[in-house]
Amino acid sequence: MVYFKIHLRLISVDQWFVNYEDGLMGSAGEFPISLDRTGGATLPAQVAAALREAIDTDTLRPGEPLPSTRDLAERVGVARGVIVAAYEQLVAEGYLLAGHGRGTVVHPRLDRARAAQGVGDPDQHAPETRAVAGPLAPGTPLTDAVDRPAWRSAWRHAATLAHRSAPELGDARLREEISDHLRQMRGTRRSPSDVIVTAGARDGLSLLLTALGTTRGRALVVGVEDPGYPSLRQVAARHGARIVALPVDADGLVTGELPNGVLDVMIVTPSHQYPLGGSLPLARRRELLEWAIRTGVVIVEDDYDSELRHVGSPLPTLAALDDPATGTVVLLGTFSKTLSPALAAGFMLAPAGLRRLIEPVRFDLGGPVSAVVQAALARYLAEGELRRHIARMRRRYARRRDLLSERLAGQAGWRVRPMSGGLHAVIELVPGGAAEERRVLERAAAAGLGAVGLSSYWEANSVAGSTGLVIGMGGPDDAGFDRALSVLRGVLADAERS
Amino acid sequence: MVYFKIHLRLISVDQWFVNYEDGLMGSAGEFPISLDRTGGATLPAQVAAALREAIDTDTLRPGEPLPSTRDLAERVGVARGVIVAAYEQLVAEGYLLAGHGRGTVVHPRLDRARAAQGVGDPDQHAPETRAVAGPLAPGTPLTDAVDRPAWRSAWRHAATLAHRSAPELGDARLREEISDHLRQMRGTRRSPSDVIVTAGARDGLSLLLTALGTTRGRALVVGVEDPGYPSLRQVAARHGARIVALPVDADGLVTGELPNGVLDVMIVTPSHQYPLGGSLPLARRRELLEWAIRTGVVIVEDDYDSELRHVGSPLPTLAALDDPATGTVVLLGTFSKTLSPALAAGFMLAPAGLRRLIEPVRFDLGGPVSAVVQAALARYLAEGELRRHIARMRRRYARRRDLLSERLAGQAGWRVRPMSGGLHAVIELVPGGAAEERRVLERAAAAGLGAVGLSSYWEANSVAGSTGLVIGMGGPDDAGFDRALSVLRGVLADAERS
Repeated sequence: MVYFKIHLRLISVDQWFVNYEDGLMGSAGEFPISLDRTGGATLPAQVAAALREAIDTDTLRPGEPLPSTRDLAERVGVARGVIVAAYEQLVAEGYLLAGHGRGTVVHPRLDRARAAQGVGDPDQHAPETRAVAGPLAPGTPLTDAVDRPAWRSAWRHAATLAHRSAPELGDARLREEISDHLRQMRGTRRSPSDVIVTAGARDGLSLLLTALGTTRGRALVVGVEDPGYPSLRQVAARHGARIVALPVDADGLVTGELPNGVLDVMIVTPSHQYPLGGSLPLARRRELLEWAIRTGVVIVEDDYDSELRHVGSPLPTLAALDDPATGTVVLLGTFSKTLSPALAAGFMLAPAGLRRLIEPVRFDLGGPVSAVVQAALARYLAEGELRRHIARMRRRYARRRDLLSERLAGQAGWRVRPMSGGLHAVIELVPGGAAEERRVLERAAAAGLGAVGLSSYWEANSVAGSTGLVIGMGGPDDAGFDRALSVLRGVLADAERS
Repeated sequence: MVYFKIHLRLISVDQWFVNYEDGLMGSAGEFPISLDRTGGATLPAQVAAALREAIDTDTLRPGEPLPSTRDLAERVGVARGVIVAAYEQLVAEGYLLAGHGRGTVVHPRLDRARAAQGVGDPDQHAPETRAVAGPLAPGTPLTDAVDRPAWRSAWRHAATLAHRSAPELGDARLREEISDHLRQMRGTRRSPSDVIVTAGARDGLSLLLTALGTTRGRALVVGVEDPGYPSLRQVAARHGARIVALPVDADGLVTGELPNGVLDVMIVTPSHQYPLGGSLPLARRRELLEWAIRTGVVIVEDDYDSELRHVGSPLPTLAALDDPATGTVVLLGTFSKTLSPALAAGFMLAPAGLRRLIEPVRFDLGGPVSAVVQAALARYLAEGELRRHIARMRRRYARRRDLLSERLAGQAGWRVRPMSGGLHAVIELVPGGAAEERRVLERAAAAGLGAVGLSSYWEANSVAGSTGLVIGMGGPDDAGFDRALSVLRGVLADAERS
């Protein structure tokens, strides 16, 4: 049962402290609501500001429940509509998540950057951009070293091109640079005309599904890895696709069990399976490609972080094995992991046959990436800055990975899953189990770490394999990351003892 | 019949001039193809570069046919596959348009910006960004005055925010600025939480249709104005929607004849009907809203250029009459017309009920607009620069409009349709007719003006009303615009005489 008590304390004629205890999270918060009825901001705006402030200052934390609108309205002495409006505004801003049984809560995947931009000068806020809050939240790269002279000079140059619109398929120079990048970093030799600039992997998948949807004239069936990354799966669902989950082992997708005549599209992470970390062996890659060509399935290769491999050298992309004219692999790449999510830019690589479907759709829907962004990125790549930045980041991730292995070594209750690169790590619980994972997660959440349960990457209907934690290695600073690891070790050790 | 002759002249061991005459366009071009077989670039790349050069230098013009691959291969002395590959590359780049009976042609809607970026330093190219080539092509605003100190300083500031990701619904400060902008410029008072930042009007419509599509679980039926702007109509078609065309008169959408129980969505341009220019009277606005609420139709208000009205003051938006909580109007705005298409940024304004459908979709699909772009735009708006820029542009468009009326005055064969603002003009032919419009258009195309036929804005099955030309007033420079008007007058007068 979730419950909370509200303690109100009169501070001045119109300032209240709302203090409540949350039985589930075990935390307690107190936040002031001051209402100025003499004019200026509306009452809902004032209530919203107070709640925003409480969230920004961590008085209210992600996942914590809010008082019901009725309760809060009574205590503060305003009409219930005032509180409803304030909550609605904060839901729209992403601060709160509404409904679903347990009432309104602080958004569990609160984006601090979004929150930070809501109030005051964004420059004064911490450079935190994660989708899940906490120093070990997965999904966000190290971005503290992006802002260097070459970056600024690329934007300075790009800002002078205010008159240019971006071609729908992408700035030709950027497409050339991406083609070069794929050759040098991913062993993939393809012409710039095979490259389409996107607003990121999700935009690329949306585009592909829209193009395929109109040709097939029915809901698409999309295969995904299980466990797998939820982000692209959700895009497919939003396009009305039916999702079919397919098994993964330590090497990646199990290609011996692929269904015939069921799928239209299959989304895979062959270079670095998410989250388990496998790299699909060459034999499986060939088997997958042959199956796809035989059954007419379009393979979406989600190549989200292969540039960040720091052990050995990665296999070339699956796309590199594919035919540039009649092939079936659409590669999705992004600059969000290697450089910064601030760019909202990525690319897709598609063989000519599929481009004939995709390009007319892009022309009609429009290219979403600003010409200024594309010009800045083209210059940054042309000057070799992306390669240099990736080399630096790879060294830092490798150091963090070593630190992680060191800090979490020598205990029987968990093991750090081997991983050859990237910006996340998996800590498996031994022997594990759903109940133990839940216990560890609750403690990690209470400590504000931001770790995510490994079982949450499985499709709901599957039997989860191993359980544990997925953590990110892109936390804001090296010392903070180290501290968070010590806290994590404590959490794991406590959970094991209890 | 389209025919062409190829004249080849040996220049050196491996340089040829391909000279051809085009029977349809009445133009003739000559372009060099030099092949270096000693290494370096591949033969297809060399052929593509030569053709690109010929198009960039206007030797080959939009709409002009290319030699067949067989003919060109024979003359140049390479395998036909070399020419096929070169043509395919240029089709992918948007330089050429393939097939459909008349063979490969230079893309009739050649985007000069896209072309320009294909070769050399883009800074050396003309600031031409139109979708249709020519000084009177509609659709592109004046952008020569955007690059001022405030613009550069906004980008300089934004570039320092490399670590920030953009919230899916948009940077909170930008949403506040847009809310302010709508209040000051469009008489529309709505909270920042009603604003969602988009990559432009097409992105906003895509988002809405994706959100509605999953709830309705069937193909949507979308009403459009006839005549109307093809761009949003094409987006709806790409989302699998069935399009229903509804009649328009001099005041805009005819609201007395709206169908019941047929449509899911209706796209309208109430403030400045495109292309005819009507402004929907208040009585019709109310009738439209009542009908929409009664029949459950979502109204998409395409408010593409109302800020650029230069005669009188515009009515507030349709959205301003709507209920912010339970309403039915989704307003689409864009910075492409008021500021620059280089931004690829715009916004949508939606009532709370519809936002509950739209927002979860945006969270899953991701926000496409770079955090850097949003920060630059927020600062530019916050400093009042957009308002100042719009005021300057409005004066320039008004001057161009006056010039247009002056240059085209006093002739019986055509009339300039009254228009209260914006960046396009309509010249109706009197008495007109499809054959006369075709004759005028052919001459205008031969003169490279870029004008578009008024009848092309009608749905194919409708009986076209008036015929004439739609021209843009955002051509690159004032003197060039004036010259183009003189040429246009000559074209109109010639057509009338013949």
